[in-house]
Amino acid sequence: MKKLKFFQTFIESEIEKIFSESSEPKNLYEPVNYTMSLPGKRIRPVLCMAGCDIFNESEVKNTIYPAIGLEVFHNFTLLHDDLMDKSEIRRNNSTVHKKWNDNIAILSGDAMMVMAYQFISQSPSKILNDVLTIFSRTALEVCEGQQYDMDFETRMDVTESEYIKMIRLKTSVLLGASLKIGAIIGSAEQKEAQELYNFGCNAGIAFQLKDDWLDVFGNSSEFGKNTGGDIVSNKKTFLLITALNYLPEKGKKELMKWLQIEEFNKDEKINAVKNLYEEAKVSKKAQEKMNFYYENSLNHLSEINRKKEILSELAEFAQNFINRSR
Amino acid sequence: MKKLKFFQTFIESEIEKIFSESSEPKNLYEPVNYTMSLPGKRIRPVLCMAGCDIFNESEVKNTIYPAIGLEVFHNFTLLHDDLMDKSEIRRNNSTVHKKWNDNIAILSGDAMMVMAYQFISQSPSKILNDVLTIFSRTALEVCEGQQYDMDFETRMDVTESEYIKMIRLKTSVLLGASLKIGAIIGSAEQKEAQELYNFGCNAGIAFQLKDDWLDVFGNSSEFGKNTGGDIVSNKKTFLLITALNYLPEKGKKELMKWLQIEEFNKDEKINAVKNLYEEAKVSKKAQEKMNFYYENSLNHLSEINRKKEILSELAEFAQNFINRSR
Repeated sequence: MKKLKFFQTFIESEIEKIFSESSEPKNLYEPVNYTMSLPGKRIRPVLCMAGCDIFNESEVKNTIYPAIGLEVFHNFTLLHDDLMDKSEIRRNNSTVHKKWNDNIAILSGDAMMVMAYQFISQSPSKILNDVLTIFSRTALEVCEGQQYDMDFETRMDVTESEYIKMIRLKTSVLLGASLKIGAIIGSAEQKEAQELYNFGCNAGIAFQLKDDWLDVFGNSSEFGKNTGGDIVSNKKTFLLITALNYLPEKGKKELMKWLQIEEFNKDEKINAVKNLYEEAKVSKKAQEKMNFYYENSLNHLSEINRKKEILSELAEFAQNFINRSR
Repeated sequence: MKKLKFFQTFIESEIEKIFSESSEPKNLYEPVNYTMSLPGKRIRPVLCMAGCDIFNESEVKNTIYPAIGLEVFHNFTLLHDDLMDKSEIRRNNSTVHKKWNDNIAILSGDAMMVMAYQFISQSPSKILNDVLTIFSRTALEVCEGQQYDMDFETRMDVTESEYIKMIRLKTSVLLGASLKIGAIIGSAEQKEAQELYNFGCNAGIAFQLKDDWLDVFGNSSEFGKNTGGDIVSNKKTFLLITALNYLPEKGKKELMKWLQIEEFNKDEKINAVKNLYEEAKVSKKAQEKMNFYYENSLNHLSEINRKKEILSELAEFAQNFINRSR
């Protein structure tokens, strides 16, 4: 994946340059720089640049600022989500609300959203309107996804399709939009830009399903965090929803008991729930679902009739989403 | 103020139409509609429409959506500020974090910021870039102002110029920007648009100084809330900063004592601090400062050489900022 790697290195160094100086007031801008400097894969800017490269290599330079805007927006969502979820660790570092405080996390997140728009607005004038339309719609969808995720916390009757809709909004549409914004800057035709969007959305759903799967069935030393965290916190993942939907009455009752119990031994709960997952064959079902979305993503990619090396790099990229062990 | 009143009525009915339907998820969009329906003076959209009307009456129709965007942005800042300040009441109604919860307040505020950009982005294409530039810079300045305000909470050495800078950022620049965005849509020349911006900024500072003044010296039945709230909460207002800067050593010590004391009788504290304010002549100093910014605002307005009735309406509007009793 030569080109994607090149884009990643390039964007990383741009981000490093831009987010090193700290303006006043320090309590507003230092958390922004801190957040942007945490190690990250810079997936969204890389996809934006790749999306343009497919159609017009010489326009890729015009994706740089919008690409950074997408990364700033993504990091803003992580910052506010961590506050809402009361998560204390992000990428092996303290979250902003933990390192500073809640108010600083709210306000520096707000500032990041404005900064995201400042970068996005540096798209070439002739397509600025189209880029803003897709970016704002996507940004709103990400908020909707986060709200559904929070709504699910208190619900026991979440259906599979509701869950897929939630992760599509919360995670996938931004991947699709990153590719599509790049495609628009590269003057792609509407239909091709949309195929690319659909490729990103489907791959994103596969990515999130793999994430759910790894949290329970991953090898903890490779995964980089202890497995079972989602089980301990009763997170409504694809696995839990599937188990609730497919377990026979007795198993479902036992699962519900583990969801309601307040004091427990972590390992005991993880093992018990894992056994129930085994009974409901959730691992297999999750992998089938993941493969379904992965295949879907490739189908959309194959609709783009350009003989470009970068297309196979993108296919490989999506494959890594589902083959990764962490 | 015939025209301004007309603009206000018009914008109010547009807002009512737009924010009546509630999309899914309800927990995201109902707080948005709730916030937008609270009674408000709609000052920013009115200024935006007026700013355009000065230069080109027939373009005012193109200010409607950007004007609504400015109001949505303003209401977003109130929503997040109320959460950060833990305020429970806004415009005689429960604040969003009180009526729902903190997470819903964070996320529906985030959604409102995106919606603000969606409306702003509906500016005519040929000036979209200019409008976005001024809007985003202003939005960031408003965040900076709020951060300075929070930073001041733990500081006892805030200078007058630091305070003026804070209220300029937190309150005034958005009034200036509203006028300037209207002017840009009305094809004003750069210099005239800037004079209008300066008119708004200066009038805004006068407005905030009057707000500080009313909280202490206003007639509580006219003011609509009990006076002295800022004194009780040790808010770093122009009055408090002036008193700390001008009181002789003995008075300053007594004032510091009241700022540090944790258990007190409210009326006793209000009276004691008011007496110290009297000693430092802060009421007179605040009024002088307010008049200084008010006069400044009129000077900028008089630089706009258009024979338009609306200019005198705007002058009257600024006069109301400082003559109001609530």
